[in-house]
Amino acid sequence: MENSSIEEAARIIKADPYAKYLNIEFILIEKGHAISRMPLDRRHLNFMGLVHGGAIFSIADATFGAAANSDGYKAMAIHVSIDYLSPPGDTPYLEAEVREDARAGRGGHYRMEVRTSDGQLVAVCNGWAYHTSRPLGE
Amino acid sequence: MENSSIEEAARIIKADPYAKYLNIEFILIEKGHAISRMPLDRRHLNFMGLVHGGAIFSIADATFGAAANSDGYKAMAIHVSIDYLSPPGDTPYLEAEVREDARAGRGGHYRMEVRTSDGQLVAVCNGWAYHTSRPLGE
Amino acid sequence: MENSSIEEAARIIKADPYAKYLNIEFILIEKGHAISRMPLDRRHLNFMGLVHGGAIFSIADATFGAAANSDGYKAMAIHVSIDYLSPPGDTPYLEAEVREDARAGRGGHYRMEVRTSDGQLVAVCNGWAYHTSRPLGE
Amino acid sequence: MENSSIEEAARIIKADPYAKYLNIEFILIEKGHAISRMPLDRRHLNFMGLVHGGAIFSIADATFGAAANSDGYKAMAIHVSIDYLSPPGDTPYLEAEVREDARAGRGGHYRMEVRTSDGQLVAVCNGWAYHTSRPLGE
Repeated sequence: MENSSIEEAARIIKADPYAKYLNIEFILIEKGHAISRMPLDRRHLNFMGLVHGGAIFSIADATFGAAANSDGYKAMAIHVSIDYLSPPGDTPYLEAEVREDARAGRGGHYRMEVRTSDGQLVAVCNGWAYHTSRPLGE
Repeated sequence: MENSSIEEAARIIKADPYAKYLNIEFILIEKGHAISRMPLDRRHLNFMGLVHGGAIFSIADATFGAAANSDGYKAMAIHVSIDYLSPPGDTPYLEAEVREDARAGRGGHYRMEVRTSDGQLVAVCNGWAYHTSRPLGE
Repeated sequence: MENSSIEEAARIIKADPYAKYLNIEFILIEKGHAISRMPLDRRHLNFMGLVHGGAIFSIADATFGAAANSDGYKAMAIHVSIDYLSPPGDTPYLEAEVREDARAGRGGHYRMEVRTSDGQLVAVCNGWAYHTSRPLGE
Repeated sequence: MENSSIEEAARIIKADPYAKYLNIEFILIEKGHAISRMPLDRRHLNFMGLVHGGAIFSIADATFGAAANSDGYKAMAIHVSIDYLSPPGDTPYLEAEVREDARAGRGGHYRMEVRTSDGQLVAVCNGWAYHTSRPLGE
């Protein structure tokens, strides 16, 4: 794959409306690997005043989407599991890192880690994407 | 449990900032059971123009939180898995229904279904909550 | 698909050495659907005297394999999650039923239920298989 | 915890009938950590001649049980997910290593890895155990 196609894929991925709405910033998008950051404010909290599980999942999932589509072809998530390992406390932001670590035909397995600004592990996710042969831009 | 405590729990749950931010409306909250609805607009979409997996998860997870905390005591999600069964297409809203279907000590298992306005199954989730003895209002 | 190919697939599936070793009997194999039974004895127990989680999983997984390969083409499990809902107690056998409930390209989603002889739900599993175009007999 | 209680717990765990039946040998059992090995033969294979997914799960799950019960108190698995990352090929045995990596009240999260004799990663599992206060020997 040429750099131009990763750059083009990254440009499309970074325009994601849902990620923007949640304040998710893509820091790195390369082949099968992505990192993002989500500065937190009151909108990300649940009724107990803790970061909402849906917000923690959303940064993992958006970063999964970035890693899985980084080669410029459409990939669809079919399964994700999340294990909440420790509450994030007062961190100013969450950071997610996702890597592809296996392929089975058109299936790709991705491991996701969500951490606080101090690097404390908040949640791990495991997901499968289905890789199509349709280019992203279509 | 008296009705007054379910009502008080529901009042607290409905004030959830993240759910409000995503437009999630709680339609029913009763013991171990909750239903919610999320009218969709452009903010819920991903870069392919489809409803974002994080948004689909978020309505399931918020409704899971409502069902798990409905007895007025704090419960924390420890695990959720989501299987994306069919893309929601052009539905005006998503609806989620969650039921507790097992208990193991302080652990509770919840099954979640997310559907389109036509009742088509979009995703199923399975999750575990850890039930504490701390009242919600504290 | 003709009946002859389901019958041929079922013949191959029923010769599974691991299933035989664990006493798993295939009762029904039809397209995307399978039922099996596992009479229990001391070998299926863990060190607490309860049916081992690995044995409960194994009957679900073997039945998943039967349902996923029932069309006569090789399918590989890529992911399975199991939720243990209630201990099986003194049941003489476990019964598993598996159905395909969604397809995403070559991915197929299967829901699995494991029950006691009285029909009590012991565990539910959700799994994804990757369907290849290679015939079973090759 | 004194060493004597780990030793006593390990003695009980190693007598597991199901693990013995599948040829699973416990190599290391210490607090929140266990390693085991399963020499493979024809009985562990599926109808395609590959190591059965149920056998791969079973060594992970048995080792999870060893790690989770290593403190001498009964723990019950409530959830396990398995991702099959690469087929084990012709390895003479599988090795599983399990570590507890988080606690949430009485819930404990365990990460499991199953590898070939060459150290190739075959599957990863994530599981939750519920820790009771009942001693193992009772």
